[in-house]
Amino acid sequence: MNGALVTELYERIDTLPIIDIHTHVNGRSPAATNIGDILSYHYYTELANSAEFQDGGFPYNDPEALTRVILPKLALIRNTVQYDWLMTISREYLGIDPWEWQPENWRFIFDQSVEVMGRAEWPEELIAQSNITRVFLTNQYDDDLDGLDTALYTPCLRCEPFVTGMDTPSEREGLATFLGRAIRTPGDVVSAIDRTFQRFVAHGMGYAAISTPTNLATSEVAEETAQRLLTRLVEGAAWTPDERQAWAAWAMNRIADACRKYDRPFHLMVGVNREVYAQGVPSGRDLFDSVNSMRGYDHLFNAYADVRFPVAVLADTTGLELTAAAWIRHNVYPSGHWWYANHPTDIAREIRRRLDVVPGNKSIGYFSDAYYLDFILPKFRMYKFELAVVLAERMERSLVHPNMEPFSLDDALAMAEDLLIHNPTRILGL
Amino acid sequence: MNGALVTELYERIDTLPIIDIHTHVNGRSPAATNIGDILSYHYYTELANSAEFQDGGFPYNDPEALTRVILPKLALIRNTVQYDWLMTISREYLGIDPWEWQPENWRFIFDQSVEVMGRAEWPEELIAQSNITRVFLTNQYDDDLDGLDTALYTPCLRCEPFVTGMDTPSEREGLATFLGRAIRTPGDVVSAIDRTFQRFVAHGMGYAAISTPTNLATSEVAEETAQRLLTRLVEGAAWTPDERQAWAAWAMNRIADACRKYDRPFHLMVGVNREVYAQGVPSGRDLFDSVNSMRGYDHLFNAYADVRFPVAVLADTTGLELTAAAWIRHNVYPSGHWWYANHPTDIAREIRRRLDVVPGNKSIGYFSDAYYLDFILPKFRMYKFELAVVLAERMERSLVHPNMEPFSLDDALAMAEDLLIHNPTRILGL
Amino acid sequence: MNGALVTELYERIDTLPIIDIHTHVNGRSPAATNIGDILSYHYYTELANSAEFQDGGFPYNDPEALTRVILPKLALIRNTVQYDWLMTISREYLGIDPWEWQPENWRFIFDQSVEVMGRAEWPEELIAQSNITRVFLTNQYDDDLDGLDTALYTPCLRCEPFVTGMDTPSEREGLATFLGRAIRTPGDVVSAIDRTFQRFVAHGMGYAAISTPTNLATSEVAEETAQRLLTRLVEGAAWTPDERQAWAAWAMNRIADACRKYDRPFHLMVGVNREVYAQGVPSGRDLFDSVNSMRGYDHLFNAYADVRFPVAVLADTTGLELTAAAWIRHNVYPSGHWWYANHPTDIAREIRRRLDVVPGNKSIGYFSDAYYLDFILPKFRMYKFELAVVLAERMERSLVHPNMEPFSLDDALAMAEDLLIHNPTRILGL
Repeated sequence: MNGALVTELYERIDTLPIIDIHTHVNGRSPAATNIGDILSYHYYTELANSAEFQDGGFPYNDPEALTRVILPKLALIRNTVQYDWLMTISREYLGIDPWEWQPENWRFIFDQSVEVMGRAEWPEELIAQSNITRVFLTNQYDDDLDGLDTALYTPCLRCEPFVTGMDTPSEREGLATFLGRAIRTPGDVVSAIDRTFQRFVAHGMGYAAISTPTNLATSEVAEETAQRLLTRLVEGAAWTPDERQAWAAWAMNRIADACRKYDRPFHLMVGVNREVYAQGVPSGRDLFDSVNSMRGYDHLFNAYADVRFPVAVLADTTGLELTAAAWIRHNVYPSGHWWYANHPTDIAREIRRRLDVVPGNKSIGYFSDAYYLDFILPKFRMYKFELAVVLAERMERSLVHPNMEPFSLDDALAMAEDLLIHNPTRILGL
Repeated sequence: MNGALVTELYERIDTLPIIDIHTHVNGRSPAATNIGDILSYHYYTELANSAEFQDGGFPYNDPEALTRVILPKLALIRNTVQYDWLMTISREYLGIDPWEWQPENWRFIFDQSVEVMGRAEWPEELIAQSNITRVFLTNQYDDDLDGLDTALYTPCLRCEPFVTGMDTPSEREGLATFLGRAIRTPGDVVSAIDRTFQRFVAHGMGYAAISTPTNLATSEVAEETAQRLLTRLVEGAAWTPDERQAWAAWAMNRIADACRKYDRPFHLMVGVNREVYAQGVPSGRDLFDSVNSMRGYDHLFNAYADVRFPVAVLADTTGLELTAAAWIRHNVYPSGHWWYANHPTDIAREIRRRLDVVPGNKSIGYFSDAYYLDFILPKFRMYKFELAVVLAERMERSLVHPNMEPFSLDDALAMAEDLLIHNPTRILGL
Repeated sequence: MNGALVTELYERIDTLPIIDIHTHVNGRSPAATNIGDILSYHYYTELANSAEFQDGGFPYNDPEALTRVILPKLALIRNTVQYDWLMTISREYLGIDPWEWQPENWRFIFDQSVEVMGRAEWPEELIAQSNITRVFLTNQYDDDLDGLDTALYTPCLRCEPFVTGMDTPSEREGLATFLGRAIRTPGDVVSAIDRTFQRFVAHGMGYAAISTPTNLATSEVAEETAQRLLTRLVEGAAWTPDERQAWAAWAMNRIADACRKYDRPFHLMVGVNREVYAQGVPSGRDLFDSVNSMRGYDHLFNAYADVRFPVAVLADTTGLELTAAAWIRHNVYPSGHWWYANHPTDIAREIRRRLDVVPGNKSIGYFSDAYYLDFILPKFRMYKFELAVVLAERMERSLVHPNMEPFSLDDALAMAEDLLIHNPTRILGL
């Protein structure tokens, strides 16, 4: 690694404003108000629980207690990138040095965090300090979007309730309440989707989004089939796995219909196994499956050739498959580095692959997936550093590579700007 | 990266003549005659189509128009290794500098390309300039091989018609025409295969080759089963997926029988999903599946212990599986880096694995898969550079590694020569 | 690579004593007695057989003949890490220089090896010279453990006979002999397991261990089902694949019951296809399947939340899946780098992943899987070198990384000590 070149590249890339195309930030209380909020992020609770099992769970409702309980366990995860994110928050936002993170300092750390983060003006300061210019949110169909600061926030519709939640009675009742009538026909579902899109588009909708189960198979499914499935639910029957799959395929198509009608992208997050770790912390019970292919999306991508599909994958084993899909398919766009694949080794490999074979206008560099604004900066830094490493390597290779023209610092920065600014802006139609 | 060492290694490796063990070159019109031919290569049409959808397709039959249409889109793929290949062709063969590749220069580029490539002596010049000494072809069973320049070209039999094409009526009719009688019995198919091998062997046959669908399973299949399947086709019935699989397994064995009889290798290219991208350009509609194992080849490798199987894999997820197979199986030989796995990141990883655990006499370094001779040089350069990087790294590691003897420049070059010259020559019986 | 830093790190790491948590060493004749023993290790016979097929097999019962036959083939595997291990043994233990490994020197090499290794004091000298302080063994349930030197050796119970061997009559008879009565009921099997654990625990048992077939699925299985399966066997019927799977799931739970009762870990080695290469040498007939997920272990990990599961995986495609499991699951511990994944490229990638996202107290760095003590040193060196490379890289990154604190040489060494000493000691309850 050429440290000087990486540093120069990183520092230049870091001057770019942050466009964060996928977060779980709450647009109305977007930042943590104390370090307990930060430590409640599942990355910390799950690593702490994994390092030293917390029987009975953590005291989520008491930020002080949570801080006190988590702090001694942090020594066990000091090696992790997630700990590095925390230290960046500590240094940059709280002015607390890493060496101060000792269990006996919990009160000092907590009080200091409240002093900084507890102020009403904190979110705005954080946004300015971190140069964040656009934050995409994750919204339920019935979220109240009125009054959302659309100068900064872009609502995105989470589609699980329509696709994988339909056979959960409470989800169906929620949809019925939203629609103002019981969900009895496929038409009712289409109406609910359409009403949702109308509302979201009126508030500057970013895209429709869904995280999909391992090996979901999309396909054409007749409306009669959908009706039959719905009738079974109304009659109180449970779906077989095949029926769940058929409904999901039908509903994916209906979301794609709406994306087409309202000219919005459909952002896929492919391949998660939900609720597989029984003793896990909240949001820390999901894993992925290395046996997972994008094959099942052929129908969706082909049938909706005019819909843009940014795609993030959870499994490292799907990395080249996504790259290949984006290489030839005009409507598939690699999007960021998601969750279990969101760490240096796998980020770096996928950056290299995408830079080498995917058209330069098609990759969306990164999103933070953050629950609070506070995490955006450290997570983007992790990505930007890997990007700087890969670009430095590319510059050095170009000097001796028999097939390459010189790849200059300016070329490298232009590439970074495409990944971080131009591509997300164009692909998502900002 | 030690740039000076990589350069020295690369330059020394680049003096080796090129033996290209798999191409789609047409032995009778082996080189492009203008830049339109070059740009019609699916790597350019598919990337251009992916970067900016070309509704209605490209004007393949009009090289000038194709050049005019593709050129503006090339700016979008300037980051790719495929673009680097093009620039190498441009610089080395056409004398056109990369900065001249502007849409408004299309006429100049086209005319210049005709001036160079349109000459009758161009193929010979290209071959001499690029130091190409052997080119394996991809031939249909009924290709006319008479007059083929076997001092340079080695015909190889493509076996899909016998294995995966049998239930396509036009393929069956073609075989019947070739055989001189309708295909009614397994014996007819065996006769067609045998007649084909006889013809090919008489023209210096390289090997039998096939690209196989994802998760093909080979097995022993009784002749009666094959007869029953064929009868169903003759009666106009369609095969179920299981029946297609059974036929493929039977036919793979029959190809292997012929390989044994005529002492020729059977080159497998494992794991492609054909025609999955509906809006794709010609030859740009296929993808691969990360869920793909070599498990299905156990029968073939075991039952034909005396047949050599060079194997290329399409999925990165099959890379170590191939390495492990070549590590213990005496008749499996890793062959090159194919298609979606044919880019620097995945090439480098597989080179490292193969050099570390596969016997040194078993790996075939590279093949170009080129459609015109013009692509052989840039593609081999891409490989040779990665090889130089890996060998340089090995030299540097050997200086400090507690388990390694010094690995000298001469050792490195000997290894490169094994991969690029000695192994393909011996394994393929040149 | 910063050669000086890597060397410094390696040399410091190499001063750590070796705790080897998985071997196949025979506690009573733990070291090779001549070079023929060394060359009979399947890594050499399989690579030699792969490089140049040995029809009729090797003369395993005649160490001199074996040496004579293998030696000429070694030239073909000089590129491999396995050859590097051999040269380390040659240099460090036998005082024979690598250049002396010529076929015509076979007698000299053999005699020299006997002179060193044939002495009664050799095992002790080797252990002292190599600084080996703890060696875990692989034992059958009926192994005689009396007199085992438990100051050095830790017996571990291999569980295949109970889980995947039950439908092999000879295995069942062996168990009956051990138990003193025929195996007729699930209770008989539980009794055999319990008696085994009692014996092993009395001799300082390390853990229960099993290598599992590809895509094993654990689940709750009723005792009645187990009874029905056993009765079928007793009646002479053969199990279907589903029945084998059901038995395996039932038996895995019973082993885990015993691990819980006796407070011992259950070490899993995941994903091997046994006996797939028909012409393979002994122990050289197994491969792995890239299509293999840890999904099937969800039940086991959840139902036995209080049992520790060190896990090694055979497929590279399971590497991140294991990392993710260890990241969130409190009772899953990544353990070493196994067999086909035990080579530099895949070791280095998994070290990086584990260091970046798995709590620092959870990874067991390495085990040798050695058949003789002689292999422990070279194999650990291979690992330690990759570890030094990764740690050096981490130190250099920390100097310029925007999210990282300085990572000093002392930090790096502490991390190495956790992986090689503290974690195995604590996780395995030494």
